[in-house]
Amino acid sequence: MEKEITIYDIAKRLNYSPATVSRALNDHPAIRIDTKDLITETARQMGYRSNMFASNLRRQRTNTIGVIVPRLNSNFMSTVLAGMEKVANEASYNLIISQSLESVKKEVASARTMFNSRVDGLLVSVAYDTEKIDHFETFINKGIPLLFFDRVIDHDQCTSIVIDNTKAGYDATAHLIEQGCERIVHVTGSLQRNVYADRLKGYRLALMEHGLSYKEALVMVTDLSQEAGQDAARRIQAMPERPDGLFVTNDFCAVSCMQVLKQAGLVVPTDIAVVGFNNDPVSQVVEPNLTTINYPGEKMGEIAAQSLINHLNGSMNIEVTNRIVLHSGLVVRKSSLKKA
Amino acid sequence: MEKEITIYDIAKRLNYSPATVSRALNDHPAIRIDTKDLITETARQMGYRSNMFASNLRRQRTNTIGVIVPRLNSNFMSTVLAGMEKVANEASYNLIISQSLESVKKEVASARTMFNSRVDGLLVSVAYDTEKIDHFETFINKGIPLLFFDRVIDHDQCTSIVIDNTKAGYDATAHLIEQGCERIVHVTGSLQRNVYADRLKGYRLALMEHGLSYKEALVMVTDLSQEAGQDAARRIQAMPERPDGLFVTNDFCAVSCMQVLKQAGLVVPTDIAVVGFNNDPVSQVVEPNLTTINYPGEKMGEIAAQSLINHLNGSMNIEVTNRIVLHSGLVVRKSSLKKA
Repeated sequence: MEKEITIYDIAKRLNYSPATVSRALNDHPAIRIDTKDLITETARQMGYRSNMFASNLRRQRTNTIGVIVPRLNSNFMSTVLAGMEKVANEASYNLIISQSLESVKKEVASARTMFNSRVDGLLVSVAYDTEKIDHFETFINKGIPLLFFDRVIDHDQCTSIVIDNTKAGYDATAHLIEQGCERIVHVTGSLQRNVYADRLKGYRLALMEHGLSYKEALVMVTDLSQEAGQDAARRIQAMPERPDGLFVTNDFCAVSCMQVLKQAGLVVPTDIAVVGFNNDPVSQVVEPNLTTINYPGEKMGEIAAQSLINHLNGSMNIEVTNRIVLHSGLVVRKSSLKKA
Repeated sequence: MEKEITIYDIAKRLNYSPATVSRALNDHPAIRIDTKDLITETARQMGYRSNMFASNLRRQRTNTIGVIVPRLNSNFMSTVLAGMEKVANEASYNLIISQSLESVKKEVASARTMFNSRVDGLLVSVAYDTEKIDHFETFINKGIPLLFFDRVIDHDQCTSIVIDNTKAGYDATAHLIEQGCERIVHVTGSLQRNVYADRLKGYRLALMEHGLSYKEALVMVTDLSQEAGQDAARRIQAMPERPDGLFVTNDFCAVSCMQVLKQAGLVVPTDIAVVGFNNDPVSQVVEPNLTTINYPGEKMGEIAAQSLINHLNGSMNIEVTNRIVLHSGLVVRKSSLKKA
């Protein structure tokens, strides 16, 4: 490997003092523009790397943000990450990413790595089975800002970025009821996670307000995979009293459920009206097109990264913010329109 | 912010020498296991962070791998990243990610940031309009390994990880010809990019070998977006002689093209047989299900990260490897089966 180029090498090559080179590279106003240009260009040609490492060591900043997500391989999460990267990049922060693969054990290990990598802040959406957040206490104790998004855990010193999941669950269910549904199956994920617990709350509220009784047998807690959707379809077919509505908290899972129901001869929405969640592009491909909740993933990524960076720059203190709620909304398409 | 905990603090707390603490934390064989456990646990409780920064500065390693991709927000790229993260994480490397948003200008800026962040190696899939790779020369000159994947640029000192795009283009086209197609439209991306240029080569080869003439008017160079798919459908409808086959090098673009064609009353595959590319989940949702080329994204991510890490660990030298080609293959579904 080549020897690392220093400002001394550049100074020697150009016959300037090291102090002049250093000032030029730091855009000091006392240095003439043409001198700056010459020094910058020479530094580039020689392969000089600003000693970010050493200067980070001095000021205890790494200009990196850690991100821990359940899965990288999901349409929703990739839109969130795209939003985070855009904002981080513009503010000269690097993004270090890690996936828990839905396991708290791996989440603990990721948190430790992020801590040792000295990230300036951390953005987290928790795994399927995370119960406590002891593994993030080291960040909180050290004053390293921690922000939860989507799947959040309430903590006095952390901000959470969410949509109003209760309202979204309510809207989806109320819409099905307004279309004439009376037996609505709800397929969802782990009720330990705020997103699913809140959507179920919304489902129950809508039933109650419309005078329908809540039946536990109609709620299916799954991992929301495509297989779970297919399995839900089989369970629906086996029910003695056929449901006439279906609210699934994930579009891909809803689509695979619809596919099995359709193969079995059921007509959507006439026999069963369906609402999904996320507004994943697949919702506009399945036939009939899927009614769903629009979840602004890219916007959530942008707001999460921006809030963290603002905190780091001192222009907003996330310790006083408890919760940031983004807009979401029902997108009505043909899969739910019994009355059309 | 709290004061940083050092090995001296841990030594003082436990009444051990700093040397013993340091050895215990580095898993030195001379230290008893129960002593190691006590020291490690105390370090954890006190919020000690191994001084990775300082030790990285000494050994000139950061244990980070940089990744530059055209877009984070794509199903294919999210599977690639999931594979990279899995391998990197297991080998204790962090992944720093950046997206060029298909612009060479942003790619140049990302490369510079990665260089200044002192990544140990770089994995790149180039932007739509990248022509030269001068912006990566600084890595090559410094002996920092650079690996291209998917959209690659040939370089003597770099390895490229690809599928056999020419063969894939050939297979897709030959399949359509075997189904009776004689006028096959090809919708693709920038021919500056190997992936699209090679697929076109395969398309031309298949036509030639089957005695069909190549017509430039049937090849549409687009950005492969959903809008491009809709636009291609309109151009197909406006053609004086109606095409009977369609090969689109991206599933989502193929699907949006199919949707417009279907709305216009064309029947797939009877009127026009369609083949996509990537085996994106959406290919199994659109009706009829889309014949496509299976592109092993997660596997590509794993191989790319593993090759780079092996090189860094000295167990494989990527400078002698020119090209790693992964298996891909045609997945036949209903959208192309005219003869069924």
